[in-house]
Amino acid sequence: MAETTVIKNVAVILSGCGVFDGSEIYESVLTLLRLDQNGAKYQCFAPDDNQHHVINHTTGEEMSEPRNMLVEAARLARGDIKPLSDLDSSHFNALIIPGGFGAAKNLCNFAFKGKDAVVREDVKAVVQSFNAANKPVGLMCIAPVMSAALFGKDVQCTIGTDADTAAAIKATGALHKECPVHDVIVDETNKLVTTPAYMLAGSISEAATGIFRLVDTVLGMS
Amino acid sequence: MAETTVIKNVAVILSGCGVFDGSEIYESVLTLLRLDQNGAKYQCFAPDDNQHHVINHTTGEEMSEPRNMLVEAARLARGDIKPLSDLDSSHFNALIIPGGFGAAKNLCNFAFKGKDAVVREDVKAVVQSFNAANKPVGLMCIAPVMSAALFGKDVQCTIGTDADTAAAIKATGALHKECPVHDVIVDETNKLVTTPAYMLAGSISEAATGIFRLVDTVLGMS
Repeated sequence: MAETTVIKNVAVILSGCGVFDGSEIYESVLTLLRLDQNGAKYQCFAPDDNQHHVINHTTGEEMSEPRNMLVEAARLARGDIKPLSDLDSSHFNALIIPGGFGAAKNLCNFAFKGKDAVVREDVKAVVQSFNAANKPVGLMCIAPVMSAALFGKDVQCTIGTDADTAAAIKATGALHKECPVHDVIVDETNKLVTTPAYMLAGSISEAATGIFRLVDTVLGMS
Repeated sequence: MAETTVIKNVAVILSGCGVFDGSEIYESVLTLLRLDQNGAKYQCFAPDDNQHHVINHTTGEEMSEPRNMLVEAARLARGDIKPLSDLDSSHFNALIIPGGFGAAKNLCNFAFKGKDAVVREDVKAVVQSFNAANKPVGLMCIAPVMSAALFGKDVQCTIGTDADTAAAIKATGALHKECPVHDVIVDETNKLVTTPAYMLAGSISEAATGIFRLVDTVLGMS
């Protein structure tokens, strides 16, 4: 009998393009690289809506212009991106959301509200749709602050070792577990995989270790 | 006698952030990843000047706003970037310029002038400074169209296999050599290393093969 190769199809949700106001570029690119190295297909999505704000990445100061998450995230996808409203979980085996402040400013408002943060309804609906279908979800860097809102209380996750962020996560009802940069925390019940990435990474190759492990783990569970 | 580890220091010149109007994001990130994996240090630079234009990466259409190369490229460098005017080749062992249309629209005007393209004076001066010091330079994707302007006639380079672009390069006086995506062309005399990257790559992992080889080769020659 001939062997059948199953090609996994993974959705990636972006929130702009740049660590301070959108998706962290290295985390996003390393995710796509590892998916492709594993022979998986991927499709990027982003909400068709304005970013919370635009940050000049040389000065850290806010710029006056508006920018749209979908339009900016398209840069990270070489133009091949779809609005989040088109994301149907039945077409995918898994979902991954990279970090960057966009995850905490655009996909939810954790950067401003901390433990009282609210997740965008469209993001929440999509993640819960993957979860309801028993499909794995990977969140990296600061994105796991959304874990309790997305998966309910007592879900296990990590943002690494930052005490203040961990305390805020615990206050949302999730179980934060410390984790080194090269490793992942797996909540088997919820099929949620999280890794610290740039919450801990001191270099891009260090970030790659944990991100590659997250991608491999998510694909292995899908 | 104790062994001494020499840490190589590599300058990377960016031209914005996005394939259609700046530096190609995957090429830039894969360059930094491979430098870091090899234990090399790097510093990103970009001209402190406006991009030729801004392209909406979802539609391919021009947007009316101006954007500055240095400010946008800072996204690719997580904020750690310097103006090109600060780049002193004596502080570095090698130089790498990723591709993307920014290389052909911002660093030179090849996208509009073809074989009659002119390279920005600051870019030309920096590259020639590395060359004069016998330090290797790596150009990828469309960036090698600048080879003759930077290194003089008969310099060997590649952009892959695209016949029209190869003809334009030949018309500038350079010797274009066909090259597959995973390989590099090395001009030993000029210490110039080139690879096709997204001029040929069909996927990010395919692009990575040639880019990693370029970085390894440049470091080996430095």
